[in-house]
Amino acid sequence: MSETFVIVGGDAAGMSAASKAKRDDPNLEVVVFERGEWVSYGACGLPYYVKGEIQSLESLVSVTPESFREERDIDLRTGHEVVAIDPDERTVTAESDAAAVVQSYDHLLVATGAEAVVPPIEGTDLDGVYTLGSMSDGNELREYVARARSSASFQQPDRGPACRHLEDCVGRVAVVGGGYIGIEMAEALAANDFEVTLFQRGDRLLAGFSEATSEHVIDHLREQGVDVRLQAEVQKLSGSRDAVDAVVTATARIPVEMVLLGTGVSPRTELAADAGIERGPTGAIATDAYRETNVPDVYAAGDCAEATHVVTGKPTYVPLALTANRHGRAVGQTVTGTPTEGGGVAGTAAVKAFDAEAARTGIVDHERARAAGFEPVTETITAKSRAGYYPEGSDVTVTLTADRETSRLLGASLVSEYGEGAVHRSHAIVAALEEDATVFDLENYDLAYAPPFNTTWDPVLVAAKVLGGQLRGK
Amino acid sequence: MSETFVIVGGDAAGMSAASKAKRDDPNLEVVVFERGEWVSYGACGLPYYVKGEIQSLESLVSVTPESFREERDIDLRTGHEVVAIDPDERTVTAESDAAAVVQSYDHLLVATGAEAVVPPIEGTDLDGVYTLGSMSDGNELREYVARARSSASFQQPDRGPACRHLEDCVGRVAVVGGGYIGIEMAEALAANDFEVTLFQRGDRLLAGFSEATSEHVIDHLREQGVDVRLQAEVQKLSGSRDAVDAVVTATARIPVEMVLLGTGVSPRTELAADAGIERGPTGAIATDAYRETNVPDVYAAGDCAEATHVVTGKPTYVPLALTANRHGRAVGQTVTGTPTEGGGVAGTAAVKAFDAEAARTGIVDHERARAAGFEPVTETITAKSRAGYYPEGSDVTVTLTADRETSRLLGASLVSEYGEGAVHRSHAIVAALEEDATVFDLENYDLAYAPPFNTTWDPVLVAAKVLGGQLRGK
Repeated sequence: MSETFVIVGGDAAGMSAASKAKRDDPNLEVVVFERGEWVSYGACGLPYYVKGEIQSLESLVSVTPESFREERDIDLRTGHEVVAIDPDERTVTAESDAAAVVQSYDHLLVATGAEAVVPPIEGTDLDGVYTLGSMSDGNELREYVARARSSASFQQPDRGPACRHLEDCVGRVAVVGGGYIGIEMAEALAANDFEVTLFQRGDRLLAGFSEATSEHVIDHLREQGVDVRLQAEVQKLSGSRDAVDAVVTATARIPVEMVLLGTGVSPRTELAADAGIERGPTGAIATDAYRETNVPDVYAAGDCAEATHVVTGKPTYVPLALTANRHGRAVGQTVTGTPTEGGGVAGTAAVKAFDAEAARTGIVDHERARAAGFEPVTETITAKSRAGYYPEGSDVTVTLTADRETSRLLGASLVSEYGEGAVHRSHAIVAALEEDATVFDLENYDLAYAPPFNTTWDPVLVAAKVLGGQLRGK
Repeated sequence: MSETFVIVGGDAAGMSAASKAKRDDPNLEVVVFERGEWVSYGACGLPYYVKGEIQSLESLVSVTPESFREERDIDLRTGHEVVAIDPDERTVTAESDAAAVVQSYDHLLVATGAEAVVPPIEGTDLDGVYTLGSMSDGNELREYVARARSSASFQQPDRGPACRHLEDCVGRVAVVGGGYIGIEMAEALAANDFEVTLFQRGDRLLAGFSEATSEHVIDHLREQGVDVRLQAEVQKLSGSRDAVDAVVTATARIPVEMVLLGTGVSPRTELAADAGIERGPTGAIATDAYRETNVPDVYAAGDCAEATHVVTGKPTYVPLALTANRHGRAVGQTVTGTPTEGGGVAGTAAVKAFDAEAARTGIVDHERARAAGFEPVTETITAKSRAGYYPEGSDVTVTLTADRETSRLLGASLVSEYGEGAVHRSHAIVAALEEDATVFDLENYDLAYAPPFNTTWDPVLVAAKVLGGQLRGK
């Protein structure tokens, strides 16, 4: 009698687990319940679909439901929402349009993902207010873009004085939130000739990146025509005839015809919590190093779960695609007899912002570093992306943070022109963080050098030299 | 009474040591003897000067002799060749056009560099035969390019049937050696409409890179019109009226009017050897971890010296710019009271080849890995440089080698389209090698991901997954 591995949620973590488990043990029964119709899709590509650089939503799907079923022999049930988990009976109950089914499991993976946070303000239910988390969100936004652009009132590139009537506002949009979704959507909308105002609560974009990176990106967005408003907490969205018509802050009322909320995501944990599966300090599902929850044989991975931070060793919540894939895959290995940890997270993130690119990893913020017991020291340098005498290239600005006492690297934030390597250069620092390396270790890394790719000391090494000098007191 | 730090050789290692020592101890007397007139120049940029992408030789100079003297207070004596070191008296003797001077030292750095290897075949002394190591080599080659292109017989792009008379051969050139100098010069010459034949002894280009990288580069060079001849050891260069007119191999005689020898470099060690300074197994000057030779207070760094390989822990000879800078700087710190090791080398190298880029690090070659006591296992994967649905991008081919018993990473070789990140991606693997990481460590690195930069699993991680699978027996 073969065992059954049941998975709740058919995106990155769920389908990675399903595929890996089935590959490693073809006799295992693998059942996936997905409440929607799409599985295994690259939500990270949605801004580029809205932008128009990707022509079909289907191209974001890495493996189709049919090939999971037919080629990989996975019992994938789309349109099935799991409404209850019974750990005592080792069953889940799933509902579809047709009926409810009770499915027993030997191993269960909760991979319910995350959902866009809607801020608790007035007006978020008005027409013209969007979030971007799902494929259908992507579809709606692309339809909005097409509709607006085909309107007679869509004037470009100069729309003249501020709109007073809603019809005058066609083409004026707001992005609320300066994280990567907000910035990617600002790019997507500006590229379609919308007039974009970006509202950010604090005085920086890209929380968790360095101040230098934030400033670079703010300047660049403004150069690209985005009206970036800092210290501009949105108090409400106003509307007329059920449609949003303005964003209201403490000091201004900006007429717009569309609002994109890019105000973060929160883990979907209710199903798990109802079954007695514990959440951790971050609010996401707590697991051990193997992604097993407090309930035996029940695992959690992906955007609904916590992970261990490689620098602090503490639980953290960083809902990103690679972690979901990696941890899902690790669970697939574990349930088929090869216990696999799947590793921690460094909070690494990358973003393209128009013609700039930025990456961050580890801990850059001093307050957060102190809270984790470190005494942070930071240096920021700007160097050339290629040899000074080599054609083209751009500046690369690298912020590097370390602990004063141990010289251990804590984190980094980098920014350059798109294509000039801020993101790929962050890979070296991620590796250093994962290996608990010091600034002095990094300073001596024998990184590749040739004039078309960097200066003799790559900007990452320049940053390490300067920070090392400060730690040495020189 | 202040101490004196004497340096023989004014390029990367020498001037890095001089600058760092003077900065850390302004009271130190720093005397540099350089036999030529150029100091601190980027020899790695010479191919791009010949190509015409860099307009002045001066732009390759990072700091001028004047500013070393005036701003950094370094006693830099160009046009001075050191002809003897007397370790007992702690002096060096230097000769200039004017006179010979005897200079005493408290600390001495030998940074005499390397010179291009001229293969022991007939005809290398003919006119039209060049090497590329020095600024004057660069000048001569650029002059040759200009002269040839201005000749009436320089036909482009199709020169018709093979030349019989020397005049017919204008624009036909040979590059001997398929290392990075050979490849960069093939690019430089082809970009100037020369018809380039590249002769390589073995069946691969880029020794030390993987077979997959070599094949990719060979195919690409051929697409770009370079006549790549493998297994084509040059037996002699023939000439008429003192000028080279053909390259002769065992099977062919190829008429050319110019030959560029890119057949490697060897360390300049005679001066040191005459003074009793020992050479190591590689033939370069042997040092300890602080670059000190067997003679107390005498250091050696840069292209004349060995270094310790981070994977094997054994002496190796990898004459490259970053090591010279890093080790020179470390010696500058050491002689001013902060003993500094400066780290090992991973044999990391990067090359641009027309529209491709490649990097390598560590040990990829199985024979070499076995000689170092490892049992090598290798996997090569090809993945996309950006998300599959994201516009543009190229393939990235990654070869990864590890030790079967310990799973420790040994080396890697990567190739992609230029600008698609093979080189910057190698940084992560260098870091992993420096930290003695395993394939399983690398597999779990939380590398940056966003669709404009990579697939969810960066190609480096894909390679680690596949190699990890092989090591797990799956």
